[in-house]
Amino acid sequence: MDIIVLKPSAKDKDIRHIVKKLESKGLRSHVSKGTERTIIGVIGDTSKISEDEVAGVRAIDAVEDVMRIIKPYKLASREFKKESTVIDVGGVKIGGKKIPIIAGPCAVESKVIVKNIATKVKDAGASFIRGGAFKPRTSPYSFQGLGEEGLKILAHAREKTGLQVVTEIMDPRDLDVMVQYSDIIQIGARNMQNFRLLLEVGTINKPVLLKRGLSATIKEWLMAAEYIMSKGNLNVILCERGIRTFETSTRNTLDLSAIPVLKEQTHLPVIVDPSHAVGKRSLVAPMSKAAVAAGADGLLIEVHTDPEEALSDGEQSLTPDAFAELINELIPIAKAVGRSI
Amino acid sequence: MDIIVLKPSAKDKDIRHIVKKLESKGLRSHVSKGTERTIIGVIGDTSKISEDEVAGVRAIDAVEDVMRIIKPYKLASREFKKESTVIDVGGVKIGGKKIPIIAGPCAVESKVIVKNIATKVKDAGASFIRGGAFKPRTSPYSFQGLGEEGLKILAHAREKTGLQVVTEIMDPRDLDVMVQYSDIIQIGARNMQNFRLLLEVGTINKPVLLKRGLSATIKEWLMAAEYIMSKGNLNVILCERGIRTFETSTRNTLDLSAIPVLKEQTHLPVIVDPSHAVGKRSLVAPMSKAAVAAGADGLLIEVHTDPEEALSDGEQSLTPDAFAELINELIPIAKAVGRSI
Amino acid sequence: MDIIVLKPSAKDKDIRHIVKKLESKGLRSHVSKGTERTIIGVIGDTSKISEDEVAGVRAIDAVEDVMRIIKPYKLASREFKKESTVIDVGGVKIGGKKIPIIAGPCAVESKVIVKNIATKVKDAGASFIRGGAFKPRTSPYSFQGLGEEGLKILAHAREKTGLQVVTEIMDPRDLDVMVQYSDIIQIGARNMQNFRLLLEVGTINKPVLLKRGLSATIKEWLMAAEYIMSKGNLNVILCERGIRTFETSTRNTLDLSAIPVLKEQTHLPVIVDPSHAVGKRSLVAPMSKAAVAAGADGLLIEVHTDPEEALSDGEQSLTPDAFAELINELIPIAKAVGRSI
Amino acid sequence: MDIIVLKPSAKDKDIRHIVKKLESKGLRSHVSKGTERTIIGVIGDTSKISEDEVAGVRAIDAVEDVMRIIKPYKLASREFKKESTVIDVGGVKIGGKKIPIIAGPCAVESKVIVKNIATKVKDAGASFIRGGAFKPRTSPYSFQGLGEEGLKILAHAREKTGLQVVTEIMDPRDLDVMVQYSDIIQIGARNMQNFRLLLEVGTINKPVLLKRGLSATIKEWLMAAEYIMSKGNLNVILCERGIRTFETSTRNTLDLSAIPVLKEQTHLPVIVDPSHAVGKRSLVAPMSKAAVAAGADGLLIEVHTDPEEALSDGEQSLTPDAFAELINELIPIAKAVGRSI
Repeated sequence: MDIIVLKPSAKDKDIRHIVKKLESKGLRSHVSKGTERTIIGVIGDTSKISEDEVAGVRAIDAVEDVMRIIKPYKLASREFKKESTVIDVGGVKIGGKKIPIIAGPCAVESKVIVKNIATKVKDAGASFIRGGAFKPRTSPYSFQGLGEEGLKILAHAREKTGLQVVTEIMDPRDLDVMVQYSDIIQIGARNMQNFRLLLEVGTINKPVLLKRGLSATIKEWLMAAEYIMSKGNLNVILCERGIRTFETSTRNTLDLSAIPVLKEQTHLPVIVDPSHAVGKRSLVAPMSKAAVAAGADGLLIEVHTDPEEALSDGEQSLTPDAFAELINELIPIAKAVGRSI
Repeated sequence: MDIIVLKPSAKDKDIRHIVKKLESKGLRSHVSKGTERTIIGVIGDTSKISEDEVAGVRAIDAVEDVMRIIKPYKLASREFKKESTVIDVGGVKIGGKKIPIIAGPCAVESKVIVKNIATKVKDAGASFIRGGAFKPRTSPYSFQGLGEEGLKILAHAREKTGLQVVTEIMDPRDLDVMVQYSDIIQIGARNMQNFRLLLEVGTINKPVLLKRGLSATIKEWLMAAEYIMSKGNLNVILCERGIRTFETSTRNTLDLSAIPVLKEQTHLPVIVDPSHAVGKRSLVAPMSKAAVAAGADGLLIEVHTDPEEALSDGEQSLTPDAFAELINELIPIAKAVGRSI
Repeated sequence: MDIIVLKPSAKDKDIRHIVKKLESKGLRSHVSKGTERTIIGVIGDTSKISEDEVAGVRAIDAVEDVMRIIKPYKLASREFKKESTVIDVGGVKIGGKKIPIIAGPCAVESKVIVKNIATKVKDAGASFIRGGAFKPRTSPYSFQGLGEEGLKILAHAREKTGLQVVTEIMDPRDLDVMVQYSDIIQIGARNMQNFRLLLEVGTINKPVLLKRGLSATIKEWLMAAEYIMSKGNLNVILCERGIRTFETSTRNTLDLSAIPVLKEQTHLPVIVDPSHAVGKRSLVAPMSKAAVAAGADGLLIEVHTDPEEALSDGEQSLTPDAFAELINELIPIAKAVGRSI
Repeated sequence: MDIIVLKPSAKDKDIRHIVKKLESKGLRSHVSKGTERTIIGVIGDTSKISEDEVAGVRAIDAVEDVMRIIKPYKLASREFKKESTVIDVGGVKIGGKKIPIIAGPCAVESKVIVKNIATKVKDAGASFIRGGAFKPRTSPYSFQGLGEEGLKILAHAREKTGLQVVTEIMDPRDLDVMVQYSDIIQIGARNMQNFRLLLEVGTINKPVLLKRGLSATIKEWLMAAEYIMSKGNLNVILCERGIRTFETSTRNTLDLSAIPVLKEQTHLPVIVDPSHAVGKRSLVAPMSKAAVAAGADGLLIEVHTDPEEALSDGEQSLTPDAFAELINELIPIAKAVGRSI
């Protein structure tokens, strides 16, 4: 609530009213009358001032605007923790020099298919198998996932390949079963501000992969991370997956500038999901390369052995061969930015 | 999956492959070779074709695009039910000639405050009291609501004033307690695609007020309604509350054209929340009038006896006096469009 | 350049550097060291500080942000001129109690068609005939307008009906011929930031109807008005015509909240073009009503005697009968907000 | 106008009306009655059907939608010309294996400054000097450029360094003087749909660098290129410079997925301007790398010897040293994607 800008029509009694209000909250005021309008600087520990109290000040008729200088997130901020966070998931590091790859089908379909895909992406260099057991679908009539059976299939693929498991939680009631089977718990874009779910995954001791919401600002995204961290789970991985714009030739617009912006504002690792962002197979490779060049700490790529028959998102899935080729092409780019794949 | 557009490079064997694939799903094809490209019309009950199967067809290399003609929602569509749905909530009709008003504070703060506000908005003409007991807040450090205590306060206000209660659910685990205390269950904008929550409220016999997501298209919004309806609860009230755009002088951009668009596409009632859309008290009255003129079936307006001290969203709350004045100003506008307040 | 926020890493020598820089521009500084960061308040006539100089300050490494308090537009601002501007166009007032209607086809097609439309919209209550003689078309292969011949047709319709003429300028080289034939010169959405054209129409003594750009913020729109006004032409009419969003069920999203926002920030009249905003005939009437209810000072509505054969934008044109019916329906709404049609 | 979808309410006489209309335009119809609605396929050379005629069909009451399959641009399309266009500008190739760099200040300020910058970016590896002589500024009170004097300064820098000149045209009346002094003529984002200006630069024999509009879709951008090409100038270079979204931590959102999308749809070269997209110096290097990795055919980077004193956009300018360092870092990335710098 650091700087309060008054309307030109503000009277002295308005100023006194605000100063008194601030005093009642233990804050001092520095009133600065300019030629055109008056500004009140708020002195003291303004980080304790909640957004609600700011809204209360904005509700005062004489107030034109309140400009906050303190960032609303703390634990997630680079100021709170200077060194970049490296998250160790069973020996695979996310946020370090080596860039891990998460690969797999959109949805878990069957034991055989998942094992096949897992074997192939493992051979190509992936460290994690992904796949939805509980699927968020825009239509209630679409395939909703196999549920716990799907989790077991992923665990079976882990057993066979050594790949670790990333899968999405949709409901706080599924937490126990999710924790039992998976190594990283994903929060999907549509649940980025499902605050109850965020609080819930804040209590577990597994890393959380937090996708950016379809229309979330970077600030809101970091606030969602803060929700999780505020409950004690500091292992949050941010995942850029495209934002909604007016452009229709891609499913979403991949916002790669979010990577360097986040690197300045937070210590958390940032990975990129080009598959869901572009929604079209032929665009996945160039955007994966661009993501690595921009500084991504990891990639999440959809791979399916038979895209035509995939139960979900076939049009954006790479075949295992195309995936392996992409990994090879990423190696020199990673090297060029001082990283490895 | 009605029309499949092939790439100019598509070969005869591609066409045969697709035709065979369609046949295996019980569909017939009508191949039409134009001068520049070939189009395959799909004949049969294409409403049974899931989005997943469409994605599978899009995944075929020779396919450029698949154009669907059937709308993805059914129960919510105007084609399914021609007459507008009127929802009776304890005698108050939503979707009829009379336009009911939902009013109250953003958050439930105390028994006294809520009762005071309820009494005043009731006198001014409101039919419902609203107030958040469980609050979705962008910051984990903001006031999160009083929980069940808040629900009891709302129920107490209902007892004292006869106003019915509208309040928001955030977690499927709260369903029983919500149903016990409230007359309309609200799904907030950030939970519009919390599919598990949608399915859950689809099983109860109380009307659901479904807010439009911050970046939801009208089609996605209707698909969210379809989720609820697919479980048997047909009493869904759509609530436009602004969408996210690049414009920063209002909190969101109120999309009033959604009202007539929805009136063509669905039989469900549509109400408008101007307070959250604009985020600024002085803009609430003109946008309320515009909403009624555009055909809104109801309004949801934030009212607080002391906006400066409100624990949430004070800057957009009307005082009870301003609210009463607004109701008076709405009367002739409602009359002009053949309605009443 | 009123408030300069320094990075936490800023050193005393950085502060001295900035203070000196400000002094060299004749400004004083008020340095305020908080617990977490230092803020420099700039004292003096900061309205003289250009955006370029602000950018120069932002370019200093120790600076995190510069917050401007002074609005960048002056002549257009409500602070500069408290009373609402009423523009008299040959006896018709725009911005007064009576709400004038501009109607006509998208493009001028022939003398007969324009005269027919003009006669009918005049009978229904319009005050202006609109029609494009020079047409901005997204395709070079679409009808580009009749040019000067089109202007003569409009002038002929004026002669026959008494309606005044509104038409769009696209090129500074057409200014003389435009001034000769039209009563209000329109700047289209795609030219809102064609700064040379703005300066040019700033030198004439005919009112300018300035459409909002497809993705223009309200601030940028007012800056475009300021461009015109800075050259001496103070008669600028703002026209909201929808902004670009992700929603595809309407051509654009009509931002009616822009009306009350503008009413607070500027003294200029604000009219609304629902036809181009929604792009679909059936949505024009409800949005026209909403615009009047929200406080619009005028409407611009596309009317064509034969929408199917219109050379441009037939799908959003009203027939003269539908237009006449709409005018009748607008009368009680205008009355309800203290206006008349 | 390839596929016409009728409303469920469409009658046989509506179908006959449409078929007759199509016949009058020399087109045949293929009527296909499905279980739920009727579709009319249009057979014949539909590329001759203008958007206006499509709008006329949409204006028919019985028509729900018209789906076009033919792309609205021709000369710009990859289908029209399979091989990628390589534009030779005085020996420097744009669109070839080597990725040329355009560098320089936002605005031309003085002979000494421009010559200094030119010398340094030339040494670092740039092939073009850029700088605005005529500046599009959002404020009429900002520095508007030196005009012809600025062009002379650029020409002088060319003489001294051998760098070729890229500068922006804002007004068709400046065409002759622009052609005299510059090697590539730039059309700025705000003029992307200044159709008169597009037609004008279509008549010259210098390459045109066409920036994407702030809210332009890729299709509209290609239509703007088509405008230029339709007049005979086929040497159009597309320049992605960020689109407007709700995200505020960058000036615009750089849409790098536009590169591979364009590579599929057009044969024209595509370059990227990361400086204007992000608006902040520290983000320019990572986004430049990402652009090269995504397949950009060139980069346009703002460089200034003294960003703090730049008359325009200082906050996003690199120093010559930072620029030289960036070029070095780009070399291995270019190599990784089969290119060179």
